[in-house]
Amino acid sequence: MVKILMHGCNGHMGQVITRLVEAEADMEIIAGVDVSDHISNAYPVYKSLEDYRQACGQDGSLLADVAIDFSSAAAVDKLLDYCEAQLMPSVLCTTGLSPEQLERVKALSRKTAVLKSANMSLGINLLLKLLKEAAGVLAPAGFDIEIVEKHHNQKVDAPSGTALALADSINEEFNNEYTYVYDRSTRRQKRDKKEIGLSAVRGGTIVGDHDVIFAGEDEVITFSHTAYSKNVFAKGAVQAAKFLKGKPAGLYDMSDVIEGV
Amino acid sequence: MVKILMHGCNGHMGQVITRLVEAEADMEIIAGVDVSDHISNAYPVYKSLEDYRQACGQDGSLLADVAIDFSSAAAVDKLLDYCEAQLMPSVLCTTGLSPEQLERVKALSRKTAVLKSANMSLGINLLLKLLKEAAGVLAPAGFDIEIVEKHHNQKVDAPSGTALALADSINEEFNNEYTYVYDRSTRRQKRDKKEIGLSAVRGGTIVGDHDVIFAGEDEVITFSHTAYSKNVFAKGAVQAAKFLKGKPAGLYDMSDVIEGV
Amino acid sequence: MVKILMHGCNGHMGQVITRLVEAEADMEIIAGVDVSDHISNAYPVYKSLEDYRQACGQDGSLLADVAIDFSSAAAVDKLLDYCEAQLMPSVLCTTGLSPEQLERVKALSRKTAVLKSANMSLGINLLLKLLKEAAGVLAPAGFDIEIVEKHHNQKVDAPSGTALALADSINEEFNNEYTYVYDRSTRRQKRDKKEIGLSAVRGGTIVGDHDVIFAGEDEVITFSHTAYSKNVFAKGAVQAAKFLKGKPAGLYDMSDVIEGV
Amino acid sequence: MVKILMHGCNGHMGQVITRLVEAEADMEIIAGVDVSDHISNAYPVYKSLEDYRQACGQDGSLLADVAIDFSSAAAVDKLLDYCEAQLMPSVLCTTGLSPEQLERVKALSRKTAVLKSANMSLGINLLLKLLKEAAGVLAPAGFDIEIVEKHHNQKVDAPSGTALALADSINEEFNNEYTYVYDRSTRRQKRDKKEIGLSAVRGGTIVGDHDVIFAGEDEVITFSHTAYSKNVFAKGAVQAAKFLKGKPAGLYDMSDVIEGV
Repeated sequence: MVKILMHGCNGHMGQVITRLVEAEADMEIIAGVDVSDHISNAYPVYKSLEDYRQACGQDGSLLADVAIDFSSAAAVDKLLDYCEAQLMPSVLCTTGLSPEQLERVKALSRKTAVLKSANMSLGINLLLKLLKEAAGVLAPAGFDIEIVEKHHNQKVDAPSGTALALADSINEEFNNEYTYVYDRSTRRQKRDKKEIGLSAVRGGTIVGDHDVIFAGEDEVITFSHTAYSKNVFAKGAVQAAKFLKGKPAGLYDMSDVIEGV
Repeated sequence: MVKILMHGCNGHMGQVITRLVEAEADMEIIAGVDVSDHISNAYPVYKSLEDYRQACGQDGSLLADVAIDFSSAAAVDKLLDYCEAQLMPSVLCTTGLSPEQLERVKALSRKTAVLKSANMSLGINLLLKLLKEAAGVLAPAGFDIEIVEKHHNQKVDAPSGTALALADSINEEFNNEYTYVYDRSTRRQKRDKKEIGLSAVRGGTIVGDHDVIFAGEDEVITFSHTAYSKNVFAKGAVQAAKFLKGKPAGLYDMSDVIEGV
Repeated sequence: MVKILMHGCNGHMGQVITRLVEAEADMEIIAGVDVSDHISNAYPVYKSLEDYRQACGQDGSLLADVAIDFSSAAAVDKLLDYCEAQLMPSVLCTTGLSPEQLERVKALSRKTAVLKSANMSLGINLLLKLLKEAAGVLAPAGFDIEIVEKHHNQKVDAPSGTALALADSINEEFNNEYTYVYDRSTRRQKRDKKEIGLSAVRGGTIVGDHDVIFAGEDEVITFSHTAYSKNVFAKGAVQAAKFLKGKPAGLYDMSDVIEGV
Repeated sequence: MVKILMHGCNGHMGQVITRLVEAEADMEIIAGVDVSDHISNAYPVYKSLEDYRQACGQDGSLLADVAIDFSSAAAVDKLLDYCEAQLMPSVLCTTGLSPEQLERVKALSRKTAVLKSANMSLGINLLLKLLKEAAGVLAPAGFDIEIVEKHHNQKVDAPSGTALALADSINEEFNNEYTYVYDRSTRRQKRDKKEIGLSAVRGGTIVGDHDVIFAGEDEVITFSHTAYSKNVFAKGAVQAAKFLKGKPAGLYDMSDVIEGV
């Protein structure tokens, strides 16, 4: 049984994780921490980590194996304090941390296990790994590599950070020999072998689709990832917490979770 | 029974049409014309239209209802002469005609039925029509429109002529209010409602894929066309010949075939 | 300006519609009715239609052009009473109506405009229409028709009602000559021309994907619809309300909305 | 430079390989063997392996590193004789070998390197490998697994052998705990976690599409393979020959090629 301290339990993502953990046989949320108390949960919720610490002092069964954090950048410092004092492993999903906080995360990871990842989706992290393997086989066999990503019409940047991460993951396998091409309409020439084309589609409320296409002689292989909601990050956090229990001090990311399963 | 004169019967496309017509119950190739005679066909093949004309003089059963042309630009003039003299309807699939030839085609169409189309594929021509209807419903309901096309790595232009034709077909429905966007990586701004994004993927030997995407609130509708070989143009020509038999003089294209079925 | 009475305004779908209408320039919710009052809206909410009626008596500006209903089967009777008395057009989206209620809907439609549809999604209803046209062109040209639908792992029936509706829509064009095939693994024979294959994929939390595939000679055309949430029904209701304002008495469905736009 | 003896060089696949090898910088066909001599090739073609053997006796530069075989089952015995006598590695692509021939292949592999694979496509063989990894990560995370394959309307069996091989490849990772489900229309129940659904689509001239779908909580990952022609097998054979040069005696298959690259 993996016992979870859910930091930020009453936010949207905290509640998604609450629901996901309920469906897990070998995992439970033993306690939550949240400044807001407008939601009633099956586990006790404390206003602060200090309140939680005191409760643990009186009832040792409240002690968790791993903390999952989906709170706010402002709230993360307190969690880092707590994890350092208690040597508690943590899955840090809050984004927008300051450089100082990132330094603190690194320092913490020398004392206890910490997991932090650019993208918490299990699927995307799996693809990052499999694409390296696929490219290692297919590129030498003459396959061309192209990425098409689709996002909602409110997104201002293109291509998406995830699309670039997918391209980088492949490019690392080839000493970064590939150049990225974002627009073919302005030139009249054949594509070069050492190109990765990246196309960005924008429309409606598409949460995030990514296709990585390997096109060869009469054969096309496509790796597709579709997200239907941001809940995929919650799923990844649950997997990460399972993985992190009992791990030695260190800075982990989702690729370790995938390797470790 | 539709009786066909196959002009250019021993070329690649002529042979594809020969095979397709064999599978049709109510159609047959009554005669072929080709300068090359290296292939043996189930129908008589003449070296020239003049030879064919003479044969018809001796055996009226050789007379065709419609000519299908997949020859060469140089050979088309003789066919236009013949069709004008005999008032024979024709499906003209040879590309690269000169402006003078295109004028002659127009003149011929005042005397007999002539069919000529930018793209002979039944599927693409059907999409050109359906997309107008789809856009008329979906665009006012707030759907964004994007097109992704994929072609082989030898293609030098982008986006494809067919992708532009698909976009134009939609744009016509809206007084050409839409602008086309080929690259989103150079700007950091949300897409405008009155944009059609066109993305070009290049790789391997892909014959031609076109996706027209309507992305709305939590809903995406995609119209996809995949060509597996250039034989799709042959299929379109066979459909066109069936349609053309007995039609009055005029210049037709594949959209008329679709309307007429 | 289309003025809406939102019946069931504080339910999930009522709130989705509230948000959608806020984004519309030429439409507003003038009043809501809901037994629950736990949500604060920008428009006045009444506990009952009777309360609303009285308020209108004092303030004529509260009168709506069209009622949208996303309440419960039990609450629909009161709405039918009201619409009959006031001759107010209504978009009825509540499902599970009794045969008696359906009879009342029909009776009401002889006095005022009523819109009711098996599936409120604009996209699916558009496909129902376009598929008839596509099949009318492609089936005679030898294309085979197959449908693949994908839904979440909690769905017990297969294929989906929408997949069957799509197949039926095509089949109607051909005097119902097509038979439906759900499993090809138990026979060893080629498919018949007059078959529509229907395949059901079940997994994860997929909201609802439908692909209608026309496969011909070296050419495949696919019409795909993906729903990302049930909000697509709300979108359809908003479109329907716009359409219904000022329409004469009659029973309409979403296909009329599509035709009428 | 890898020197190839092309056994069956004037058949369709032999010619495809000829064209592919021409495009390779570090590979050449040094000689061909074929009973038919109707095609002129850039390399010498011998009527029999015996003729080729004699020519090698006079001109040592004709000796090949690896034989590729795309001939006929009847012709394979002679090739096995030759490879055994000369200890020449061989890529055996001819299908329909008799049990006796398969025994001989096994025996030969104890003396020299032999490569034989159920499916020569590089893409499919890569997927067989990557799917094991993907399933190992995704199935424990609650993802459901489904396979959809599409083939032409002349195919009598369903699902395809390749679809079953893909399912088996996954199932092996889980002690064959999964059962295969081919039809969901005859039951009214939720899918079981330990199922792999296999759906077969049949239409037109589709060469072979395979989608392996992992559907999880708000996230779907799809691995797709599309074949545009049977030439993909030729491509695999060329890769295999490169791999096989200099390898010790043993029976290899395409998965070794992928590992070895």
